[in-house]
Amino acid sequence: MSDAGRRMHALVERLYPLCRSITGNGVRRTLEIVAESVPLEVHEVPTGTQVLDWTVPKEWNIRDAYVRDPSGRKVIDFAESSLHVVGYSVPVSATMSLDELRPHLHTLPGQPDLIPYRTSYYAETWGFCLRQETLDALEPGPYEVVIDSTLADGHLTYGEHVVPGESADEVLVSCHICHPSLANDNLAGVAVAVELARRLAERTPRHTYRFVFAPGTIGAITWLARNRDRVGRIGAGIVLACAGDRGSLTYKRSRRGNAAVDRAVEHVLRASGRAHTVVDFSPYGYDERQYCSPGFDLGVGSLTRTPYGAYPEYHTSGDNPGFVSPEAMTDTLETLWEAVDVLERDRRYLNLSPYGEPQLGRRGLYGSLGGRSDTKRDQMAMLWVLNLSDGDHSLLDVSERSGLTFGEVARAARALEEAGLLKGLEK
Amino acid sequence: MSDAGRRMHALVERLYPLCRSITGNGVRRTLEIVAESVPLEVHEVPTGTQVLDWTVPKEWNIRDAYVRDPSGRKVIDFAESSLHVVGYSVPVSATMSLDELRPHLHTLPGQPDLIPYRTSYYAETWGFCLRQETLDALEPGPYEVVIDSTLADGHLTYGEHVVPGESADEVLVSCHICHPSLANDNLAGVAVAVELARRLAERTPRHTYRFVFAPGTIGAITWLARNRDRVGRIGAGIVLACAGDRGSLTYKRSRRGNAAVDRAVEHVLRASGRAHTVVDFSPYGYDERQYCSPGFDLGVGSLTRTPYGAYPEYHTSGDNPGFVSPEAMTDTLETLWEAVDVLERDRRYLNLSPYGEPQLGRRGLYGSLGGRSDTKRDQMAMLWVLNLSDGDHSLLDVSERSGLTFGEVARAARALEEAGLLKGLEK
Amino acid sequence: MSDAGRRMHALVERLYPLCRSITGNGVRRTLEIVAESVPLEVHEVPTGTQVLDWTVPKEWNIRDAYVRDPSGRKVIDFAESSLHVVGYSVPVSATMSLDELRPHLHTLPGQPDLIPYRTSYYAETWGFCLRQETLDALEPGPYEVVIDSTLADGHLTYGEHVVPGESADEVLVSCHICHPSLANDNLAGVAVAVELARRLAERTPRHTYRFVFAPGTIGAITWLARNRDRVGRIGAGIVLACAGDRGSLTYKRSRRGNAAVDRAVEHVLRASGRAHTVVDFSPYGYDERQYCSPGFDLGVGSLTRTPYGAYPEYHTSGDNPGFVSPEAMTDTLETLWEAVDVLERDRRYLNLSPYGEPQLGRRGLYGSLGGRSDTKRDQMAMLWVLNLSDGDHSLLDVSERSGLTFGEVARAARALEEAGLLKGLEK
Repeated sequence: MSDAGRRMHALVERLYPLCRSITGNGVRRTLEIVAESVPLEVHEVPTGTQVLDWTVPKEWNIRDAYVRDPSGRKVIDFAESSLHVVGYSVPVSATMSLDELRPHLHTLPGQPDLIPYRTSYYAETWGFCLRQETLDALEPGPYEVVIDSTLADGHLTYGEHVVPGESADEVLVSCHICHPSLANDNLAGVAVAVELARRLAERTPRHTYRFVFAPGTIGAITWLARNRDRVGRIGAGIVLACAGDRGSLTYKRSRRGNAAVDRAVEHVLRASGRAHTVVDFSPYGYDERQYCSPGFDLGVGSLTRTPYGAYPEYHTSGDNPGFVSPEAMTDTLETLWEAVDVLERDRRYLNLSPYGEPQLGRRGLYGSLGGRSDTKRDQMAMLWVLNLSDGDHSLLDVSERSGLTFGEVARAARALEEAGLLKGLEK
Repeated sequence: MSDAGRRMHALVERLYPLCRSITGNGVRRTLEIVAESVPLEVHEVPTGTQVLDWTVPKEWNIRDAYVRDPSGRKVIDFAESSLHVVGYSVPVSATMSLDELRPHLHTLPGQPDLIPYRTSYYAETWGFCLRQETLDALEPGPYEVVIDSTLADGHLTYGEHVVPGESADEVLVSCHICHPSLANDNLAGVAVAVELARRLAERTPRHTYRFVFAPGTIGAITWLARNRDRVGRIGAGIVLACAGDRGSLTYKRSRRGNAAVDRAVEHVLRASGRAHTVVDFSPYGYDERQYCSPGFDLGVGSLTRTPYGAYPEYHTSGDNPGFVSPEAMTDTLETLWEAVDVLERDRRYLNLSPYGEPQLGRRGLYGSLGGRSDTKRDQMAMLWVLNLSDGDHSLLDVSERSGLTFGEVARAARALEEAGLLKGLEK
Repeated sequence: MSDAGRRMHALVERLYPLCRSITGNGVRRTLEIVAESVPLEVHEVPTGTQVLDWTVPKEWNIRDAYVRDPSGRKVIDFAESSLHVVGYSVPVSATMSLDELRPHLHTLPGQPDLIPYRTSYYAETWGFCLRQETLDALEPGPYEVVIDSTLADGHLTYGEHVVPGESADEVLVSCHICHPSLANDNLAGVAVAVELARRLAERTPRHTYRFVFAPGTIGAITWLARNRDRVGRIGAGIVLACAGDRGSLTYKRSRRGNAAVDRAVEHVLRASGRAHTVVDFSPYGYDERQYCSPGFDLGVGSLTRTPYGAYPEYHTSGDNPGFVSPEAMTDTLETLWEAVDVLERDRRYLNLSPYGEPQLGRRGLYGSLGGRSDTKRDQMAMLWVLNLSDGDHSLLDVSERSGLTFGEVARAARALEEAGLLKGLEK
């Protein structure tokens, strides 16, 4: 197991018990822990703030919640799992029969040993989630029902981490941090993003990398509302989620379909030989929904392993730290790293000697004994780069057209640039 | 059998015996009968009128025609079938041997029990069509040969029916009415068009619908010549023919290949699950040849069942009322009706809240309990419509990209428009 | 065997023994022999002349070369095969042991009975090529080693033949003439080009045809450098090589991928039913590398039979006159001739009667008896040409869209032009 894999899994385990929601102290505590690894700028946006078409909601916090049976035993206990309470439940303290309680109970009859995950952000109600098995064993009551929560004016909290690059062009990496005790659908993405940020910090990248850790939907909307003047800088972006299960990788294209990030990630997945799936954009899933809304239409795709809703443990207590593996998170990280490498090195070049082939031999770039047919791949890479560097083709275009790897092509471009035969274009 | 199917078949049977040609009383009588169902404006265009590259020909009328053998028996008799006389035959009254007659006789040796259909509009000649069986039994003669026809200055006749819509944009439905006793290749199209017009009259459609009942080629050319200032209004059109045989539907694209009618009909055929064929435009067939000539290049396709020339009964006495079925004509009508529905409802919309997703929940457009994965199709339809309503995509685009039905998408658009989130664009 | 086939093979046999290189008397003598069949303008470009990024090298000539063993026997003898000496070997006259000689010896261990072909144009060295079998039998020596060559200021020589056409637009046919005793990879292309030029001279073509016989790479670069003001006239071009082996034809597209030559050759190959391969451009192979460098980007493809490097005899003494056949060269020639025919006759026309179909019947262009379904192909060709002659489509477009042969379509266009219905466009 790699060091990175170990660190990522440890982070998932540490963040797992916290009760996150779209606001509140669970999010704050999550960001504090992330900030131990990478510095974060934490933003607090007051309840009632208008953000695009939405309004920042009241802040929800919860201290305890349980259902106690006539014998005094807690048959449902928030302390056991943060999933037991419907997110944004209003406070309750009452005694009621099972029949009265039942409309507030959510189970998964088809998965009787799992606790479901439910929220009710925008309708003031309350509820408990529990195993069907537990429900089946409940007596008529009466039950003591307590939710010690507050729903009041406060703030929405999100964090940002920036790795400055040579250019102000930004690459956005966005993760949601609004799910309570769910490991794959939340924490694995956070862990991979943190590790990616650490690696990027070891060098000065060409692009600036901006990591956004924010609650889903309302968090991304808040970030977009507060950064409307900045979104023009985002040349590429990726929403990271479900980054740690043992399934193969799935890339979901941006709404544009051929944005820089689409081409980079798809190239890396194809070149890697990894089993993987690429799907077109659809307006459902994670925060690519917001980044790819038609007014913004950013070149932001989404990388997951098994996608949203497509594994039985999705949004249940089955999505726990055991469901995500260090190896899978490492695989996600490495794929992302290769895609970042393409984004970093891909550019269009101009052949400065475009009439006929330049004489590579006198520049020491070519074998001198002619007539042989086993032309080497790096010589082919130089010929391809020279031939296609007309201002219309990037190195990734050259790689895809030639069948040579991006690395071979980028290496050839560097050699040709050093020999004065090539000039990198800014855009 | 549906009422519509019954009505359509009855109309075919009633029109069948008439001897239609490109001019003459057979056409006039056909239009009179059609006018019993839908009001028609009938146009009479004088012989000699210049129409585009053509000239309106002399008017041809026929009262009787026969060949009588030495015993006085009519071995060929126009009264038995209008197909027996070559269309546009000049008058003849003569006695001649079989050898002299033979060059004027047309048969189908491979289909000895069928009478072929032949015409000679632009070369002044005469002839008879008969069963090969009949020909084989003929004695040497002499025969009395009579064609009681007139070929003289007169008129070309065609009819128009208009269903006015909210907009002056027109949808053209065109049928040929120049074939004598042929049921599928003529009358089934007329019957389906009449029934479509009845249905459209029950509401005020968005587009104006113009039905043209005209002789093939010269009739369409005449209509085009007299409506050159109107063709710019034709946003979509369809040539209806061979609408009643028991084969599956065939759609032939307009010359443009992706005109509104092409997209609508192909969508409906695909979505219906019906067996069907779609073929590219070719400059042969029915009057799409004229509507799609390069000077006009209208978005006019052609809907048939078994296409032109592809069934053995084509242009023979085998194409009789028994060859077309009420069920097949109903199927053609329903397909057309669904395509009309797409043409009526398809349009581009503009998302008025394009930055991020609008908050559907507070507008009552979204389920309030989050976290569940079984997002309903109508909610997906709303998200797709919002995401793609950037002015570039129509509802049909949304349907095809999302995999949702056109109806689901159109319903979502209406809900969003009512909620003030969407604005329909004029064009 | 055709006369052309016999002539082409005789030319290959006659040119075979000459020791060609990128400069020198072997090239001059080759051009003299070619000039016996078609008049050539021979150009001599002095050593040191700057040509694009390159410099014309010293001229190399060789009179004799051998390695003599202690018994006085010539174990390697240039008189036996021009391949025995590494091209551009500097003079040597020395006695040395086998161990000293060995670094200068080139063999093909995997093809022990074949002499390889090697050159060293831009590094001053010397060497011998020989059969592995021969090497294996050599005793320790000492050996007398003689290369009687000169490498000195002189000239680079190339030849041009022009068949003038009605237009100054040029079609370029280019062959390399720098390989010594190699039949397929050199001489077959020359022979086919000579025969094509003879045929073209029998008529005045529409385009001007320019044949360039020049050494590979440096010769094409020299020609391009001296004709930069002319390259704008080249509307199509083809590099001919490997034109005589018994494999099927391979067409390599120009860098543009859909240039006139690409469309013409691919159409001919497809329509012919011949087994063939079409490959995309790549910046390796023959002089299409230079013509398709990004600064020029000419519409020049390459026609070979088995392509460069893909047959075991490639660049060995196995590529001798027995390796090429009169039939294969004839097949290459005929394919080229058909492609030339497309280039000659293809053009865009304008339908002068574009509104509706023109009445073909009154112009004698159409059968007069209607109603028959067996419309003839030439009538379909007329309808297709009329329908697509809107200024956007060429005859080749019409052929490909209609499925009719180019000949049928071109014939229809001529008939329509003669009837005043069509007008040829210049470009």
